[in-house]
Amino acid sequence: MNHEFESLQRKQVKALDEILGKLFKVLDDGFVRVIEYMGSDSSIAQAARVSYGKGTSQVHEDRGLIRYLMRHKHTSPFEMCEIMFHVRIPMDSWRQWIRHRTANVNEYSTRYSIAIDACQTTNHEQWRMQSTKNRQGSEEFLDPKAGEELSRKEAEIQEKARAVYNERIEKGIAREQARKDLPLSTYTEAYWKIDLHNLLHFLELRMQHNTQLEIRSYAQTIGQEVVSRWCPITWEAFMDYWFNAVTFTANELNIIREMASGNSEKAIQLAEEFGWVSQRADRPKRNYEREEFEEKLRNAGIPIPWGNSNE
Amino acid sequence: MNHEFESLQRKQVKALDEILGKLFKVLDDGFVRVIEYMGSDSSIAQAARVSYGKGTSQVHEDRGLIRYLMRHKHTSPFEMCEIMFHVRIPMDSWRQWIRHRTANVNEYSTRYSIAIDACQTTNHEQWRMQSTKNRQGSEEFLDPKAGEELSRKEAEIQEKARAVYNERIEKGIAREQARKDLPLSTYTEAYWKIDLHNLLHFLELRMQHNTQLEIRSYAQTIGQEVVSRWCPITWEAFMDYWFNAVTFTANELNIIREMASGNSEKAIQLAEEFGWVSQRADRPKRNYEREEFEEKLRNAGIPIPWGNSNE
Amino acid sequence: MNHEFESLQRKQVKALDEILGKLFKVLDDGFVRVIEYMGSDSSIAQAARVSYGKGTSQVHEDRGLIRYLMRHKHTSPFEMCEIMFHVRIPMDSWRQWIRHRTANVNEYSTRYSIAIDACQTTNHEQWRMQSTKNRQGSEEFLDPKAGEELSRKEAEIQEKARAVYNERIEKGIAREQARKDLPLSTYTEAYWKIDLHNLLHFLELRMQHNTQLEIRSYAQTIGQEVVSRWCPITWEAFMDYWFNAVTFTANELNIIREMASGNSEKAIQLAEEFGWVSQRADRPKRNYEREEFEEKLRNAGIPIPWGNSNE
Amino acid sequence: MNHEFESLQRKQVKALDEILGKLFKVLDDGFVRVIEYMGSDSSIAQAARVSYGKGTSQVHEDRGLIRYLMRHKHTSPFEMCEIMFHVRIPMDSWRQWIRHRTANVNEYSTRYSIAIDACQTTNHEQWRMQSTKNRQGSEEFLDPKAGEELSRKEAEIQEKARAVYNERIEKGIAREQARKDLPLSTYTEAYWKIDLHNLLHFLELRMQHNTQLEIRSYAQTIGQEVVSRWCPITWEAFMDYWFNAVTFTANELNIIREMASGNSEKAIQLAEEFGWVSQRADRPKRNYEREEFEEKLRNAGIPIPWGNSNE
Repeated sequence: MNHEFESLQRKQVKALDEILGKLFKVLDDGFVRVIEYMGSDSSIAQAARVSYGKGTSQVHEDRGLIRYLMRHKHTSPFEMCEIMFHVRIPMDSWRQWIRHRTANVNEYSTRYSIAIDACQTTNHEQWRMQSTKNRQGSEEFLDPKAGEELSRKEAEIQEKARAVYNERIEKGIAREQARKDLPLSTYTEAYWKIDLHNLLHFLELRMQHNTQLEIRSYAQTIGQEVVSRWCPITWEAFMDYWFNAVTFTANELNIIREMASGNSEKAIQLAEEFGWVSQRADRPKRNYEREEFEEKLRNAGIPIPWGNSNE
Repeated sequence: MNHEFESLQRKQVKALDEILGKLFKVLDDGFVRVIEYMGSDSSIAQAARVSYGKGTSQVHEDRGLIRYLMRHKHTSPFEMCEIMFHVRIPMDSWRQWIRHRTANVNEYSTRYSIAIDACQTTNHEQWRMQSTKNRQGSEEFLDPKAGEELSRKEAEIQEKARAVYNERIEKGIAREQARKDLPLSTYTEAYWKIDLHNLLHFLELRMQHNTQLEIRSYAQTIGQEVVSRWCPITWEAFMDYWFNAVTFTANELNIIREMASGNSEKAIQLAEEFGWVSQRADRPKRNYEREEFEEKLRNAGIPIPWGNSNE
Repeated sequence: MNHEFESLQRKQVKALDEILGKLFKVLDDGFVRVIEYMGSDSSIAQAARVSYGKGTSQVHEDRGLIRYLMRHKHTSPFEMCEIMFHVRIPMDSWRQWIRHRTANVNEYSTRYSIAIDACQTTNHEQWRMQSTKNRQGSEEFLDPKAGEELSRKEAEIQEKARAVYNERIEKGIAREQARKDLPLSTYTEAYWKIDLHNLLHFLELRMQHNTQLEIRSYAQTIGQEVVSRWCPITWEAFMDYWFNAVTFTANELNIIREMASGNSEKAIQLAEEFGWVSQRADRPKRNYEREEFEEKLRNAGIPIPWGNSNE
Repeated sequence: MNHEFESLQRKQVKALDEILGKLFKVLDDGFVRVIEYMGSDSSIAQAARVSYGKGTSQVHEDRGLIRYLMRHKHTSPFEMCEIMFHVRIPMDSWRQWIRHRTANVNEYSTRYSIAIDACQTTNHEQWRMQSTKNRQGSEEFLDPKAGEELSRKEAEIQEKARAVYNERIEKGIAREQARKDLPLSTYTEAYWKIDLHNLLHFLELRMQHNTQLEIRSYAQTIGQEVVSRWCPITWEAFMDYWFNAVTFTANELNIIREMASGNSEKAIQLAEEFGWVSQRADRPKRNYEREEFEEKLRNAGIPIPWGNSNE
């Protein structure tokens, strides 16, 4: 055996080291901070090269290799980077966050300690109306005038709930029971550790425009302030090949084929065959698949062969 | 190749089929129901026999084999059974529940639908005092007389919080935002699916006496009402070899050796060497390891060589 | 509380029950059998409806709901179905298989029992040539004439390796050590249990045309013989929206936009800007991204604006 | 909000930095090297303190806190440390290794590159006999004289298998197919990344005396050379409270109670009631539970009330 390995040094990412521990504010009283990390863009390339054996390091450079891995969903090298955050977040958003199972967590314990005395508050311009198109989303903002009333009552109920909590604590009630009627808006804190691949998956879902604004704010901060500094090549590849990529179904692709070949008549005909468009009535009847396809086309700036049914 | 496999039938567990869908009440308004399952005690034995190859089926009978697997922590055969529950549970307890990552979950969405109009309530006899020994536990109950006041105020804050929620909904606020100040005691519902090995791990932690009463109630119901019917041999082995087993550390074992050999003087001397017991003062000074050991001895009915320091 | 739940019966899938235990042959001496399962298409819809609350069961029918879930990557309801297979497979393919971590496994133990006396054999027409385009793939078949020699030597080395193994066993060497020089082609058997979502993910990767033929044969059998019977609506949706869907990167989409708008000049110009096409030389220089895009277009029957560079 | 967080520096562990990249030899041609890590003993304490809230840092010192966490199986703080290894290992041992699912892996690809030209070899003194007591273990060594013959034939079959592989490669056969008859003893390499809690779980299982010698050698190297340098307090606590701890079942504990109370007659009587001991015959009949209990007692130096049945 003749393995001549020189000793190693840990990968340092200067741009990330500079913000280590720094608090990025999110919402009215939340934050995200990086506590620790391991690996870098070059660790990803290095891990991939183990799979490919020696001698390939010359062939691809890091950037080309990382972009190749991202396009081809070779995910395991991205798992070789790891990062730990300290987050402060309303319990309601944390409920969504914690559903990502492939992570390590230490959360502030309200069995052990007095609950954090802070709730997420909403100012009068921030009340969002229920979306009429999407059952699980929000749209425009409530008239700020009307919002004032809601914000006032929000402050009231939060104050009252805290008073109830405090009274229980004073009477000697166990913290684990006293907390039971705290609002979901109560802040909690946690250490959260995850590998880069699973973090990108988290960001893909949570940076989406139809994600709830609160958790989306955290995801955007993590993506734009942290990942972009930590692994800039990976971040760019993620945006190009994953986050901003668009997937077309088998049927959608058939229609695009006709459009790209200049046969818009044939495109419309296919849509009719798929049951997406009914031209008999004065306007097309509701069809989810067609609407989703239209949205993809609109976002890409591609004209819709049968016109815009959502106008 | 000459594999002569007859066709198979799914394993049926009659005792579990009889309660399928049946609601077991937990807390004031929660429940646990079994929706589906797969496998049985005999599936576990069958899976183990794949590892051992043919011809071993005669050697061990199912019961002996399952008990052997449990004693030796051969966990993979227990993963071959799977079960799905429908649970109704306060969000606060669900926060603890969901930390068990090796499970599949579909939870009621308060983004999509109006939040369930029910909170866990506490009657005047159920208020628990903060434990003085264990920072994250509770002890005796509050005087029911004093509890009346707390229960009255609990009803008040829950009613008020719901009114705030309802007003927001009426004003057209998005459900995802309207819910933000609901109490943690608000009930949620979920489908929860898990394999038997990970379920036993859940039960081991959540049936412990120092687990919070609320989630413990769910765990006990699942263990005693469901697992005991589903896989009775496994349940018995779990109680004998896992839940009721006691682990002694290297140092504790040294002391037990002396006790079992009749050298209680030597046992005390060892405890002194370990820094557990200080006989100089009029009573031993606080030492966590000694106290934990004493508790194990007390629970097992074994006399403590240096007497009971907790008296 | 007024929860009136009737008692339940387990979901039965008749088409799957009919093949339970049935052996589907794969390769020369391998197989796949279904041993157990839990859930069905209707379980998936039911689990999704828990999230959406009551009253939605009328809105969507099962098929529409399942197709919606698949298109929108709402994966958790698919995790509510579970299946257990018995597979017999060469160790070399099992090495790839076992990399899928979200599954439960009991494998035949060659520490405990004598190794299975069968190796995967290759007949003279089945030797595959190294791909010249894809470093980790194979292409056409070797001339069968030349294959005869290789098949003969394969038989020889397998026989010899077995003789070595048998001699060690006869001399009393421990099975765990005696096996060390068995060929990777030696068959093993295992019980393998996985939920439907993770099974679909497995099939997506392993049914791909560039996956190694051996494991692809298993994946295709599982997909076409098992999943199509077990959850036919899900299987159809998987093929339409996942397996046969095509993802375009941000740049690719820009080019498609121009093509669909009839601006093929602009499309070529964009490709040049991206550095994909160099028209100066007599033929375009190698560029992975362009080649991947061309392959997507070819597969979809869409003409390539700059002509076919691979001709 | 008034969160005054100073900027942070990554935790450095000098003793580990000194051996970063250093090759620890295992077996005849294998090795283990540390490539990267994140966290330290003090990170574990810090993560635990997040759960406990502020102000507890003074109460426990790191060592006391870590030992407390280990005794009470509070595992999540240990998940906050992460480490990446480069290992070179026979495929047969890697088959066992890879069963640990909670880790990240990049393995050398024999589809992409020529297989590593090295097999694990066994010298004439290293052939182990099949255990007569444990169906899946080995015992004493074969007579070195007889071992010579086996070692000679081992070299022969390894050489022959390599020649077959080389011939296929020369004939242009795809690497993915050419490799199929390589011996399980062929070396592979991989990057393997895991958190400290799951690493300790790996070590607990793989450092056991009844684990196969090959993988045990890797586990011991990782434990003694790496973990002991990286997190010395955790390593010590692991040995005291986990690896060297002994678990007694409910029945065993009953017998120990009588022994510790000086009632050895009662202890024997209990064993008879449990069906463990049959005194009628000239020697006790075989009983697994009794034998396992006897072994625990023997290892702890505690006399067996009914004498040593294994003599």
